[in-house]
Amino acid sequence: MANSYDLIVIGGGPGGYVAAIRAAQLGLRTAIVEREHLGGICLNWGCIPTKALLRSADVFRLAKHAKDFGLRIEGEVSFDAEALVKRSRAVAGRLNAGVEFLCKKNKIDVIWGEAALAAPGEIRVAAPKGTARPQFPRPKNILGEGVYSAKHIIIATGARPRALPGLEPDGERIWTYFEALLPPSMPKSLLVVGGGAIGVEFASFYSTFGAQVTLVEALPQILPAEDAEIAALARKSFEKQGIKIITSAKLAKLDKSDNGVVATIATESGEQSVEAERVISAVGVVPNSEGLGLEALGVKTDRGVVLTDGFGRTNVSGIYAIGDVAGPPMLAHKAEHEGVVCAEAIAGLSPHPIERTRIPACTYCHPQIASVGLTEAAAKAAGHEPKIGRFPYIANGKAIAMGETEGLVKTIFDAKSGRLLGAHLIGAEVTELIQGFVIAMNLETTEAELMETIFPHPTLSETMHESALDAFGRAIHI
Amino acid sequence: MANSYDLIVIGGGPGGYVAAIRAAQLGLRTAIVEREHLGGICLNWGCIPTKALLRSADVFRLAKHAKDFGLRIEGEVSFDAEALVKRSRAVAGRLNAGVEFLCKKNKIDVIWGEAALAAPGEIRVAAPKGTARPQFPRPKNILGEGVYSAKHIIIATGARPRALPGLEPDGERIWTYFEALLPPSMPKSLLVVGGGAIGVEFASFYSTFGAQVTLVEALPQILPAEDAEIAALARKSFEKQGIKIITSAKLAKLDKSDNGVVATIATESGEQSVEAERVISAVGVVPNSEGLGLEALGVKTDRGVVLTDGFGRTNVSGIYAIGDVAGPPMLAHKAEHEGVVCAEAIAGLSPHPIERTRIPACTYCHPQIASVGLTEAAAKAAGHEPKIGRFPYIANGKAIAMGETEGLVKTIFDAKSGRLLGAHLIGAEVTELIQGFVIAMNLETTEAELMETIFPHPTLSETMHESALDAFGRAIHI
Repeated sequence: MANSYDLIVIGGGPGGYVAAIRAAQLGLRTAIVEREHLGGICLNWGCIPTKALLRSADVFRLAKHAKDFGLRIEGEVSFDAEALVKRSRAVAGRLNAGVEFLCKKNKIDVIWGEAALAAPGEIRVAAPKGTARPQFPRPKNILGEGVYSAKHIIIATGARPRALPGLEPDGERIWTYFEALLPPSMPKSLLVVGGGAIGVEFASFYSTFGAQVTLVEALPQILPAEDAEIAALARKSFEKQGIKIITSAKLAKLDKSDNGVVATIATESGEQSVEAERVISAVGVVPNSEGLGLEALGVKTDRGVVLTDGFGRTNVSGIYAIGDVAGPPMLAHKAEHEGVVCAEAIAGLSPHPIERTRIPACTYCHPQIASVGLTEAAAKAAGHEPKIGRFPYIANGKAIAMGETEGLVKTIFDAKSGRLLGAHLIGAEVTELIQGFVIAMNLETTEAELMETIFPHPTLSETMHESALDAFGRAIHI
Repeated sequence: MANSYDLIVIGGGPGGYVAAIRAAQLGLRTAIVEREHLGGICLNWGCIPTKALLRSADVFRLAKHAKDFGLRIEGEVSFDAEALVKRSRAVAGRLNAGVEFLCKKNKIDVIWGEAALAAPGEIRVAAPKGTARPQFPRPKNILGEGVYSAKHIIIATGARPRALPGLEPDGERIWTYFEALLPPSMPKSLLVVGGGAIGVEFASFYSTFGAQVTLVEALPQILPAEDAEIAALARKSFEKQGIKIITSAKLAKLDKSDNGVVATIATESGEQSVEAERVISAVGVVPNSEGLGLEALGVKTDRGVVLTDGFGRTNVSGIYAIGDVAGPPMLAHKAEHEGVVCAEAIAGLSPHPIERTRIPACTYCHPQIASVGLTEAAAKAAGHEPKIGRFPYIANGKAIAMGETEGLVKTIFDAKSGRLLGAHLIGAEVTELIQGFVIAMNLETTEAELMETIFPHPTLSETMHESALDAFGRAIHI
């Protein structure tokens, strides 16, 4: 039957398309239903276009400091907001087209529209509702509205920005990440509500390009998922860069003014008023689990999250969920790995369930932040006697040669077993360094193997070695 | 006795001072004899100051391409050769002072002068001969000429540039790495003799700053220690940047001209003439094993290399050698690790001998090159049936967002056991990526653990994952 598949994946984001590719590799006849953009939020409106903008910010920062490197720039270093955005969109567009290519190469059908589960093994696809956002060209040779059947159905519908009451995005003064990626010009002042990874990245970007940024976080700590010591260093660095940070604080009221908004921020020590041209709402995301017909089929959810086992299986046979819609951490690489594991389980292989303590997290602000495993507080709460190692960038030769001496590598070992429990990094290129610790944890490293590893000199990665040595009183360069 | 130590280390380079620090940590009364500069060639005239210059080159390259990132620079991006050098020397000076601090902190005596073994357990230190090179201030509180005794003596005297007949450095037109680090101005044209890591780094640096560079290598492949495929990609990239490369070629004759030199290069297809303002001789290094009294004590050497076992022990009890003087690979991180292993063996611990196939190598040209383990050719020669994975940077989201799409990650697994035999990388930041593969090899990884590792998105490190997947036909993004 033409409309019949082994597997249909609803949602063409990283989790969805990776699950589909892996299934296709394993010989399953596979289709993806997508309503807006192959590659999902991550490629089109998230990870990728933000990294393009942040790369421009990095180059801008370096060019501004050209003299420190023995260089001469006559005249001013400035930017062209339109060109920044154009570049970012082009990068996203290139990857969006890449996913189309991968689907074609792997013989995965793409069905364009809004999917809902009609019955076990059956979905109905309606015309896509569309959005006002600019879109890349639709893929060629797509299927459309109709009824499709599949032995297995993976829900990979992702998540969307949470709308805080009183902070509903208006697309003009109150932005979500969609609008924040398309600034028509650089605002002179900006209020970012929400101090998680997304809020912090935008705060870093806009601050670099000259906006007076105020960052408000409800919890006492920005980047609440990170180790407290690293988050404190990040805060100090952001404040030094001129970002105003208010924690343990909530948006009490938002009034529109002639030029922007006047926000009333409720803090422990009373109310503060913040004026800003624009506001970015970065107060988290909610899973896209409505309108899929899950309730009628009895698929269990909890506050919008589809409940699954370690292989993506829901409580209803033949229905699976992966990625953001299946719960935190809401990260593309977690979604992709869930996609692989789920596809392999469907194909009858015996994959290992995902190990949540080995999922790294990265924030691409300046300085960068990356981590994996338990924080110091979590290690203690779990009953470990932690052995903590610390090594600062300022004692690392490559960091000094680069002019990037701000940073710290913190490692947490279990005193009894020597097992590496967690690693928490801030500084230049830590988003590229963290993989070494993730590999080490996956291979169940203890301190001994890390100490015996020969890290190349001169590299920033030597700080990883020294941090492990320091946990056991053996650091060389401090 | 005041002049009596548990351990004397001759040479204060990375191997030497790290051995001394580790010995001091283990309670040994330790001294270092140094004749010129704490930190050795690496910190003062090698790894570190070159990386400072190459960082300037990176920033210069980015600033020149500012427009590609949505930025505007009015006027020209240029450089100040004096400022470049000044910055590089300041970085080296800072690290040189850092080693002095570490010696003091670890209560390691510093003896200033030329050491020679007088008898087993005894060395004589004579006044340093000095050099014409600019030096950083001497450490404070140093000891001087005299006779010193120690139960254990480590020779860590390093290496020096090899002088090719007819290409003897004159400090003016014919440079070694010493002079190449102190250009009074940028030469318009440059001949680099020797296509190993040092030659390639200087070629990359001078080419970035506008010199017309010709690189001559005696073997058919530049970077002869690297995997042939990676070296070929590097060559292609350098040639695209305007570097002229002549392989299987030797310097037949060098005549001085009014403005520089005229070199006659003998190639397989006849002689070529190359005119250049300056020449850098980068034809390798020779161990500093003369004048130490090794022969008289019967310490075995082979073509200048002091022969040792896996713990730095020579054939004479109580005499050890580490680092460049103990043979290749002549890399600071190998020297440092040998220093730790040797100090631990002396202190009666049971360290593991150094595993030479797990020593990474990095070249900081543009694009960067990094590798560990067996090349494809070496894997085949060793009787392995290799499974090869490849993943190009051009298929990686972060690389596209960075505008750094030139690169390749090549992984080599043993088909039978799945063991990772080697990894060979070219591209942005690979010198920071390689540590993940080194850690993995130290933990005896097979492909399975690498496949299950969740690499963070979006990072360049995802190319490492995809390369391992590709070796087994499972890559997602190509």
